[in-house]
Amino acid sequence: MTIVNDPELRARANEAAVSAMLASQPVLVDVLPALDALPGMTPRTILTSGAPLPWAAYDGGQRRAIIGAALYEGLARTPEGADALLHAGEIVVAACHDHGCVGSVTGATSASMPVLVLEDLRSGRRGHCLVYEGSDRERLTYGVWNDKVHRQLIWIREVLAPRLASALRAAGGIPVSPIIRRALGMGDDLHSRNTAATAVLFGQLVEPMVDANGFDKHTREALEFIRDNDLFFLHLGMAAAKCVADAGAGSPGSSIVTAMAISEKEFSIRVAGTGSRWFRAPIPTLHAKLFDGITPDEIAFMGGESLITETVGLGGLSAAAAPSLQDYSGGTAARMVETTQTMYSITHTEHPLWKIPYLGFRGVPFGIDAGLVASSGVTPRIHMGASRREGGHAGAGLLIAPLAPFVEAIDALDPEGAPSRAASLH
Amino acid sequence: MTIVNDPELRARANEAAVSAMLASQPVLVDVLPALDALPGMTPRTILTSGAPLPWAAYDGGQRRAIIGAALYEGLARTPEGADALLHAGEIVVAACHDHGCVGSVTGATSASMPVLVLEDLRSGRRGHCLVYEGSDRERLTYGVWNDKVHRQLIWIREVLAPRLASALRAAGGIPVSPIIRRALGMGDDLHSRNTAATAVLFGQLVEPMVDANGFDKHTREALEFIRDNDLFFLHLGMAAAKCVADAGAGSPGSSIVTAMAISEKEFSIRVAGTGSRWFRAPIPTLHAKLFDGITPDEIAFMGGESLITETVGLGGLSAAAAPSLQDYSGGTAARMVETTQTMYSITHTEHPLWKIPYLGFRGVPFGIDAGLVASSGVTPRIHMGASRREGGHAGAGLLIAPLAPFVEAIDALDPEGAPSRAASLH
Repeated sequence: MTIVNDPELRARANEAAVSAMLASQPVLVDVLPALDALPGMTPRTILTSGAPLPWAAYDGGQRRAIIGAALYEGLARTPEGADALLHAGEIVVAACHDHGCVGSVTGATSASMPVLVLEDLRSGRRGHCLVYEGSDRERLTYGVWNDKVHRQLIWIREVLAPRLASALRAAGGIPVSPIIRRALGMGDDLHSRNTAATAVLFGQLVEPMVDANGFDKHTREALEFIRDNDLFFLHLGMAAAKCVADAGAGSPGSSIVTAMAISEKEFSIRVAGTGSRWFRAPIPTLHAKLFDGITPDEIAFMGGESLITETVGLGGLSAAAAPSLQDYSGGTAARMVETTQTMYSITHTEHPLWKIPYLGFRGVPFGIDAGLVASSGVTPRIHMGASRREGGHAGAGLLIAPLAPFVEAIDALDPEGAPSRAASLH
Repeated sequence: MTIVNDPELRARANEAAVSAMLASQPVLVDVLPALDALPGMTPRTILTSGAPLPWAAYDGGQRRAIIGAALYEGLARTPEGADALLHAGEIVVAACHDHGCVGSVTGATSASMPVLVLEDLRSGRRGHCLVYEGSDRERLTYGVWNDKVHRQLIWIREVLAPRLASALRAAGGIPVSPIIRRALGMGDDLHSRNTAATAVLFGQLVEPMVDANGFDKHTREALEFIRDNDLFFLHLGMAAAKCVADAGAGSPGSSIVTAMAISEKEFSIRVAGTGSRWFRAPIPTLHAKLFDGITPDEIAFMGGESLITETVGLGGLSAAAAPSLQDYSGGTAARMVETTQTMYSITHTEHPLWKIPYLGFRGVPFGIDAGLVASSGVTPRIHMGASRREGGHAGAGLLIAPLAPFVEAIDALDPEGAPSRAASLH
């Protein structure tokens, strides 16, 4: 592994990874059933967020969501029946990230659920994510399965997805990077806040949506759903970020982070030089602002891969762009500016197009370098949603990533240097 | 005039004026020909921006625009013919502000031109402004009259205005204050930048526009025009601000500013306690960033009443909300924050709903008090467009209002105190 012991070679590998990521041009081209869109997907596979765990390890929201997805697909008739099939491996649980996909919170994604298809114009590489489920606190996304959740998933599959798909074909696809660029200038961080991005997307969707579908009751419902859900764009941004991050994956020797994800139990990362290997650690405390009536003891993690937005410089890394989120992220706008400024110390470069007005149009911190994280001890700042143990959306806050996975990743890239790094950390 | 010599009575009068302004709830209810909408309008009246001047005093862009409007209305067949009728008083030039209207730049407004009708839900008071003319540098707004300008004005009258009017009737009106509130959280100052406000408005217009008109070629053109012109909302905001400012007008003894406007020659203000009287001064230098290829010696004033946005706490007063404008307004985002912070020293209160995220959601500085301006020497900071002497949009910048009109207004409210104020200023 001589390549990784040489700082100059590491720098070159990181430059290659980041250049490939920056060259990605994700375009929203279609909406398709997960079975048709995702590589390796089967009718009996259920994808979920985070580095995968044995089925028995899922005992909270992710478990409920995966069982819900099994019932939604008709793979079992009762939760107990689904549980037995999952134990027996007759329903397979797999990681979203291993199937070209990213999941929001639980990320429970099954065969017939429609996914957004983002394609990198340059490489043809695709990234996917479920269509946003709506703003109801009770969602499969947030570990809830009931009749109302079921009806909403059917509406998305039968009404929203086909209309969106035909609109996208009429439009010839919608490039996502320019929308992100514009939204950063309009107060979005593109993780916890997607208000502007959704409004810009809506403007681009109206004509092709009506052209392709006419202006009937269902078109109207679809347009209203997109317009009225400020976070609608989040899942597009996530799938686009998956496209971008995957472009850097597999660069030998590179310490650039290509994924960050959580499950119920763990925070995990991948780096470009070690492919699909996960580096794992327990999840730290989320500093959250909770909805009225919800107390901190009610909160529990149930997975999440929206951290892919931070992986490409958005979300917490772009905190300075979104002062409206101050109550959820540090308390003041000044703290959010500091957050972004700190992130430049652990990133490889600045994005040439995605810029933050408040910082004199400086590009967002881009390309988290696990080497810089490991040597400085500064870890990524992440904006993320909070969930209730019993299910449901509970608020949002700031997560400070744990240091261990970054150190482990560097140790894996450079086993010979590991002992001296360990000594210097103690 | 004992009422004005007593600081407590002045404070009470100002409180009354500002309370009335804050109670105003402007709703976009219709689009009508100026002749039908504006009080005192006649087929031979042409309104223009600023405190009125004798016809002979108009020798630049305002002159060209007024003559253009006369030709557009068919009141004359040649510019020379129009000029003769204007000299003879057979075509009457009047101030927008005296007819319930505000004008952008030249503000040339004639009988058949469609105006946005904003109605205060509480009082029934109305404010008006022309429909936005488009983003072409050559516009009647910017002192240009030619065939292309003529065709665009006809398209607005024949295509855009009727479709917008029928959409508004279908929608039952669109309240404007919530859009302003939302846009301040999305990086707009609502004067030089209306990107977010236009996107939010677009979202609210689509359904009623298609419901009322079907989705034909012209509806499509109208929707594209609104979506693609980031400044479309400006004229709505101006008319809404006129509604709000007029609510404060005529409060005896009050030194709250109810209008700021410029003509080719003068910067002028009105205050609540002196009704329609203008206090005038020469226009100071505009610190502008010009479009590529345009030099400072090409710039000339040709009127403008978009300063009504500053009159209600937006634009330059809300600079801190719109860091994207930094190149046009002080050079850095930090300077824009300082600008807004300074404005709190000359305003009566903070708006309870219109808030600036970067300032910890502090309300925008609201209700410019000419008394505070006169005593501190700090004058309003104004974001405004730059125009070429020969016509056309040339850029945008920051105008620092002259002090004299504010001092004169206070002298008019309190003639007995004038000599001592004059002494203390020297």
